Amino acid sequence: MLSPGWAGSEVAALTGDAAFLDALLDAETALVRAQAELGLAPAPAVAAITAATAACRDPRALARRARAGGNPVIPLVADLSAAAGPEAAPYVHRGATSQDILDTAMMLVAARAIEPILADLDRTVRALTALAAAHRDTPMAGRTLTQHAVPTTFGLKAAGWRSLVLGAHTRLSAVRSALPAQLGGAAGTLAAFGAFAEAEGPAGSDRHAELGPRLLAAFARQTGLAEPVLPWHTLRAPIADLAAALAFTAGALGKPAADVLVLSRTEIGELSEGSGGGSSAMPHKANPVRATLVAAAARQVPALASVLLGALVAEDERPAGAWHAEWQPLREALRLVGGAARDTAELTAGLTVHTDRMRANLDLTGGLVVTERLAAALSALTVRGTAKQALTRAARRAADEGLDLADALATEPALAGLLPAERLRRLADPTHYPGSAGALVDRALREQP
Amino acid sequence: MLSPGWAGSEVAALTGDAAFLDALLDAETALVRAQAELGLAPAPAVAAITAATAACRDPRALARRARAGGNPVIPLVADLSAAAGPEAAPYVHRGATSQDILDTAMMLVAARAIEPILADLDRTVRALTALAAAHRDTPMAGRTLTQHAVPTTFGLKAAGWRSLVLGAHTRLSAVRSALPAQLGGAAGTLAAFGAFAEAEGPAGSDRHAELGPRLLAAFARQTGLAEPVLPWHTLRAPIADLAAALAFTAGALGKPAADVLVLSRTEIGELSEGSGGGSSAMPHKANPVRATLVAAAARQVPALASVLLGALVAEDERPAGAWHAEWQPLREALRLVGGAARDTAELTAGLTVHTDRMRANLDLTGGLVVTERLAAALSALTVRGTAKQALTRAARRAADEGLDLADALATEPALAGLLPAERLRRLADPTHYPGSAGALVDRALREQP
Amino acid sequence: MLSPGWAGSEVAALTGDAAFLDALLDAETALVRAQAELGLAPAPAVAAITAATAACRDPRALARRARAGGNPVIPLVADLSAAAGPEAAPYVHRGATSQDILDTAMMLVAARAIEPILADLDRTVRALTALAAAHRDTPMAGRTLTQHAVPTTFGLKAAGWRSLVLGAHTRLSAVRSALPAQLGGAAGTLAAFGAFAEAEGPAGSDRHAELGPRLLAAFARQTGLAEPVLPWHTLRAPIADLAAALAFTAGALGKPAADVLVLSRTEIGELSEGSGGGSSAMPHKANPVRATLVAAAARQVPALASVLLGALVAEDERPAGAWHAEWQPLREALRLVGGAARDTAELTAGLTVHTDRMRANLDLTGGLVVTERLAAALSALTVRGTAKQALTRAARRAADEGLDLADALATEPALAGLLPAERLRRLADPTHYPGSAGALVDRALREQP
Amino acid sequence: MLSPGWAGSEVAALTGDAAFLDALLDAETALVRAQAELGLAPAPAVAAITAATAACRDPRALARRARAGGNPVIPLVADLSAAAGPEAAPYVHRGATSQDILDTAMMLVAARAIEPILADLDRTVRALTALAAAHRDTPMAGRTLTQHAVPTTFGLKAAGWRSLVLGAHTRLSAVRSALPAQLGGAAGTLAAFGAFAEAEGPAGSDRHAELGPRLLAAFARQTGLAEPVLPWHTLRAPIADLAAALAFTAGALGKPAADVLVLSRTEIGELSEGSGGGSSAMPHKANPVRATLVAAAARQVPALASVLLGALVAEDERPAGAWHAEWQPLREALRLVGGAARDTAELTAGLTVHTDRMRANLDLTGGLVVTERLAAALSALTVRGTAKQALTRAARRAADEGLDLADALATEPALAGLLPAERLRRLADPTHYPGSAGALVDRALREQP
Repeated sequence: MLSPGWAGSEVAALTGDAAFLDALLDAETALVRAQAELGLAPAPAVAAITAATAACRDPRALARRARAGGNPVIPLVADLSAAAGPEAAPYVHRGATSQDILDTAMMLVAARAIEPILADLDRTVRALTALAAAHRDTPMAGRTLTQHAVPTTFGLKAAGWRSLVLGAHTRLSAVRSALPAQLGGAAGTLAAFGAFAEAEGPAGSDRHAELGPRLLAAFARQTGLAEPVLPWHTLRAPIADLAAALAFTAGALGKPAADVLVLSRTEIGELSEGSGGGSSAMPHKANPVRATLVAAAARQVPALASVLLGALVAEDERPAGAWHAEWQPLREALRLVGGAARDTAELTAGLTVHTDRMRANLDLTGGLVVTERLAAALSALTVRGTAKQALTRAARRAADEGLDLADALATEPALAGLLPAERLRRLADPTHYPGSAGALVDRALREQP
Repeated sequence: MLSPGWAGSEVAALTGDAAFLDALLDAETALVRAQAELGLAPAPAVAAITAATAACRDPRALARRARAGGNPVIPLVADLSAAAGPEAAPYVHRGATSQDILDTAMMLVAARAIEPILADLDRTVRALTALAAAHRDTPMAGRTLTQHAVPTTFGLKAAGWRSLVLGAHTRLSAVRSALPAQLGGAAGTLAAFGAFAEAEGPAGSDRHAELGPRLLAAFARQTGLAEPVLPWHTLRAPIADLAAALAFTAGALGKPAADVLVLSRTEIGELSEGSGGGSSAMPHKANPVRATLVAAAARQVPALASVLLGALVAEDERPAGAWHAEWQPLREALRLVGGAARDTAELTAGLTVHTDRMRANLDLTGGLVVTERLAAALSALTVRGTAKQALTRAARRAADEGLDLADALATEPALAGLLPAERLRRLADPTHYPGSAGALVDRALREQP
Repeated sequence: MLSPGWAGSEVAALTGDAAFLDALLDAETALVRAQAELGLAPAPAVAAITAATAACRDPRALARRARAGGNPVIPLVADLSAAAGPEAAPYVHRGATSQDILDTAMMLVAARAIEPILADLDRTVRALTALAAAHRDTPMAGRTLTQHAVPTTFGLKAAGWRSLVLGAHTRLSAVRSALPAQLGGAAGTLAAFGAFAEAEGPAGSDRHAELGPRLLAAFARQTGLAEPVLPWHTLRAPIADLAAALAFTAGALGKPAADVLVLSRTEIGELSEGSGGGSSAMPHKANPVRATLVAAAARQVPALASVLLGALVAEDERPAGAWHAEWQPLREALRLVGGAARDTAELTAGLTVHTDRMRANLDLTGGLVVTERLAAALSALTVRGTAKQALTRAARRAADEGLDLADALATEPALAGLLPAERLRRLADPTHYPGSAGALVDRALREQP
Repeated sequence: MLSPGWAGSEVAALTGDAAFLDALLDAETALVRAQAELGLAPAPAVAAITAATAACRDPRALARRARAGGNPVIPLVADLSAAAGPEAAPYVHRGATSQDILDTAMMLVAARAIEPILADLDRTVRALTALAAAHRDTPMAGRTLTQHAVPTTFGLKAAGWRSLVLGAHTRLSAVRSALPAQLGGAAGTLAAFGAFAEAEGPAGSDRHAELGPRLLAAFARQTGLAEPVLPWHTLRAPIADLAAALAFTAGALGKPAADVLVLSRTEIGELSEGSGGGSSAMPHKANPVRATLVAAAARQVPALASVLLGALVAEDERPAGAWHAEWQPLREALRLVGGAARDTAELTAGLTVHTDRMRANLDLTGGLVVTERLAAALSALTVRGTAKQALTRAARRAADEGLDLADALATEPALAGLLPAERLRRLADPTHYPGSAGALVDRALREQP
């Protein structure tokens, strides 16, 4: 209820307690299937355990019982063993540690949640491609430190947004396909799998030493996740990479949101959200609600990422706190980014561009936005200092007295006669000073996902 | 399910969506009662709206509808108006803005959630008082940068924990009693209340200007919260103060947790949690689960606090993002601190102190922990440099050859004959070098909540 | 060079390496003076050590040698002992640990740096008092989620800023006067002081146990800092409180900066910095440089505070990392807040208020900013739903067709004849709808530092 | 003086104000060279400007003057123009904006600072390769949640460290080679370059539109940095990527530091730093200073990264605050990582491994670390529940009565006669239960930078 940014989204469903429980059970069944693949578990156990998962779908009860051992896998294994029956029970969670299951489930949840995020980033890229192309040459004020600087185009702005969103897509896709399964056993040596094999048949220790890596590969295959080089109980690179990619994405989406918030201000009015949000008090308002919610997400994810990046410092073979501190921040980061991706896809698809307001705002400074160009033109005809001083003086006068800059310049003694009035007026036209904006848009649109 | 640190706790219940919805409705009914108090709403409207709240208790439906306007108050007002009936409906939410209700509800939730936290801090202080008193003179190794330094006492350590927890109690109580109601109307001028009064009766604008502050006072009384000097839509001091006090509390609880984690290490074994957590893989383990969960909370709250402190920078009369970014981090911080307070209360009440291990560990360095005292004694008899060098040499030999420091010193030529063997042995006894630990414990225990 | 926000400021000088070295030496000399006060050091040693400080003023050399032991106190003690001569050398740093000196120096630096910050906050409060009083009744648009909402006054905005800055002053003053000296010896038991006393004279251990607290009191007096109840080597409440107060202050200053940045946008133009910053490329620009630098500071301090709040979790009697991680973030936070306080004092003193632009902008929505008032007036004459719908319809038409809201309303069939045209026009005048703004300003200005 | 972690390091020198000023001047000279390359500036101007840089090497003076405009480029351009003489002055900074120069300089500084970091990571990888290979089969206790779990090997631990450090190297190298030059002119359209060309010669606007991208390419070549697709004034991907890679590296180095801190505890003693740090109070101490300083760095960088990741949300064509908030955190992150890389290289090169202590600690639990293996062996002979219960009971008895686990098991009635005593004893030998540790080490060492 306190997260309108992601409530009701597809990512919300994919990261909820029920989805997480599904993923825990997927990890447990993948484990017994992997063992069966290597001849370490009988086929009926696989069937019994798979069937038993149906009896273990109450996340609330699990959550309460998670406290005693500090994680939900311990009570889940108890339930699953009971439901699997005495024959299959020994093969439930066999040789694994809670962290194997929880980390694998977290990776499954992340992988599943990233899918709709990537789809929404794709939709956003398409919408921004269209906007950038349509407005390749639409002039608007370029603004720096809140002030009009020189003209730019809305196409270049949209192409910039697209470039960031594309960058987020690239980074998130790369992280997505590298998400690894986790399997290490009690302390990362995979020893228990060998111990069971040893207990149940005749075999040299060498064979058992090789069993671990083979099982790791089989388990990864069964989960559909990548195979890690080492168990990563305390080598938290996958978490750190996820954190970085999610924070990048939140920021990449936060940039267009920030621009929409500025440009839809009452006084500026150059953009508006397709359908703005209402207000409980003011019937006339059409708030930029989506941009607001995206901006709110972008404020939270970097802090969550700092917790996740800090969790790289994980002592021993399982840390007392750093690991537990990852779960909720990672889930929350996925949700916030999921909501922000959805909102940005809608925002960019429905964005209304008020080119008339862009044009009108360009004139607000009476030509001051082209002083740079005039300075260049004049400095070719005089020494730079002189031109700059005269321009500054004229610009002040234009601002103070409400004159057009061209008129103010025409009466600057230092510049008298340097440029014909017509050329001066053309140079001072803010719609004819796009620089390389168009070429840059073309170049940016050639970048593909 | 991913938050075993607070799942099932009293604070979890007090901060859930249902509790938050209760608080939103409490704020709405306080508003109409306050208006009735000033003659601005009829008594039947109060009754009808109060009764109507029963029809508005589905947080899930509200959450979904919160998205369009960016907050859950907008659909709630619609529901409440419908349920209150046409006569009372005009008095629902009258003159208020969503933020008035949401902020007030957040303060109510915070106030309610802090109660059990304070109670748990009280329990913790009592447990630590007992531990500090009981172990006022129990010697143990003082450790700095992971190494034994000089002896201290467990009493002094417990007194230090108590001092931090007491500090958290003080700060959180102070913040608790200052939590303000929020009422400002659309942009913080309380104008709509005057507009309704003006619309309904004859009155000068002066009277209406005074109406706002009077209503603010009445509303605060009705909610049981403090009366703010100004509406604080974008003056977020209450949020910042909450954030700081919660982060302080998380850290204050994190300190004993960190010490318990160190001191319950297998090799150290000086403390153990009353009932440790089990393991899904290793039947013999008794993990310091509570300390682990508290440590996990303490890693998260400072980052959440950084988001909340950052929200002080709230532009305009309602910011587009900074406000929305407060809700979930504040709730999560309350929950994490609530869980940590509960766990620490249990942890300190059930803590087992292994004084024999403390004594045994003190001997591990063969007397090196009292080199400081020996240095003082010897430097009074020789020049400081000489004594220090001889001590360092003897300490190295003692460590390398497994000697007692007293024996190693006895054979240092530079110190020959300076101190009688018996006095040397007494000075080297680590159980007789508590410094002012006892006096400090006494002094610390005189501090009261 | 990368911190124009605080370069050259008084706080920069008070927190530089030279100032920090001064504070370290102040702590060392206070220590020997305190011992002399209790008869534990001879007067000539005090004089010699005080004189020797002159030979220890090269922070650069110290910085390089700080690495081996992990802190600058170790090489400093070596230098100071050498400079004090063989008679006084034994009294240099006697009984103390590096952390005693470094923590005390940090508190001295903080105390000294906070003085000019408080002075700048005072100046800011005075400037804002004047602005709030002068503009008590200056109407301007209230803006929520970037859109005009209802009118407010610039006085109320300035009074809000003042209230936050006052709050920062209060919090920072309280923390300032509670900054404690640090003295605990090697592991917080103050044992070495007793050991030296014991070594040098006949005395029972009870007397020595009391010596610690007495010396702590004397040391605090000599430094001018507060006396802590316990040595706080790992009870980092003073650091956490400083962090919270500095983050609060950064945010409190960030709020007016954020508003100035919005309101000085080219299109809005309601405020401008007295003397704006130039640009290397655009002669006409007058950037809101001070507000920009304050905003930049406000983005950094919460993250630094999160590190400092996290340092509460300090294991053992001196933590391996948490303590060392405090130094630079605390100094940087002091500097950023120092620079922001200076810049805000200048910004508020020189702020230009363009009341004409405020007035003009109020008209931008053609009266939409008073729909709330009209809704109230109309809802008294009809049922709420009807009025609201008609208003929304009229507001949309007014916006789309560029009409005045009063005119659009006059042709709404549902409202026909409800209100005389003249009253409608008066109700729709945005300069006559300040609500309780004036009363709130008066009330806020009664709050004193 | 407050940063012993990086003071005096190569990275410190490469990130200091003097180095930054060098980079600013390198950017300015690259700009004029690039223009000369395209025929937009005469050769003598290149020579004069290059020569003039010698007169602009006082970072302190620049720092003070940076305040007025909010960045150091503005006064630098004034100085450089003056020193270049009237002929060359017009070509100083021609067409560029401050941000072009400052961002380019920041990338140059980052690129230069990363070189020694990569070299130190290389050294660390080599040291860890040797440690992992040498200790491939050295048994030690695997520890989870602070408690002994099952045996592992020091080789596997070192291989894990190596894998993280290798990961940091990969990420940092990739970011290093992608660091882009910045060139966009006043608002990212590269317009001024065309304006100067237009002012000085006859040409169609199309040609001028193409000039921008050509100049961007030439400028990138001249700086040795990558060519960006777009000017990135407000597309801060390079900063975000740097932040993520630096935070990853800090965490990757923080992991071995955390383990060294645990394993060098007085009670554990399995590792020690080659040359420990001294103490100002305790002559006997050898502190793990390098690990402490690395741990301190790892606590700070994630928070700095959160500021940098937050800066992605950069409104307009140059943001008022977000950009300025990048400079110092980025520099500080480079320094902290630089110091941590240096310290870790030294730490791993000099690390002393106490295999005897590893062996002795393995016995501390009297065989409890192999209960997992025993459980496997016994569960093959009985039903799982029975074996587990008997083991738990025996483990408790072993712990309480100080027995060997094998002896305790021998007297468990439920297990009587299941396993011959000799096999039981072999199964209970903690040095013969490495699992797949060796195979995992081999596999990890095949990963190359």
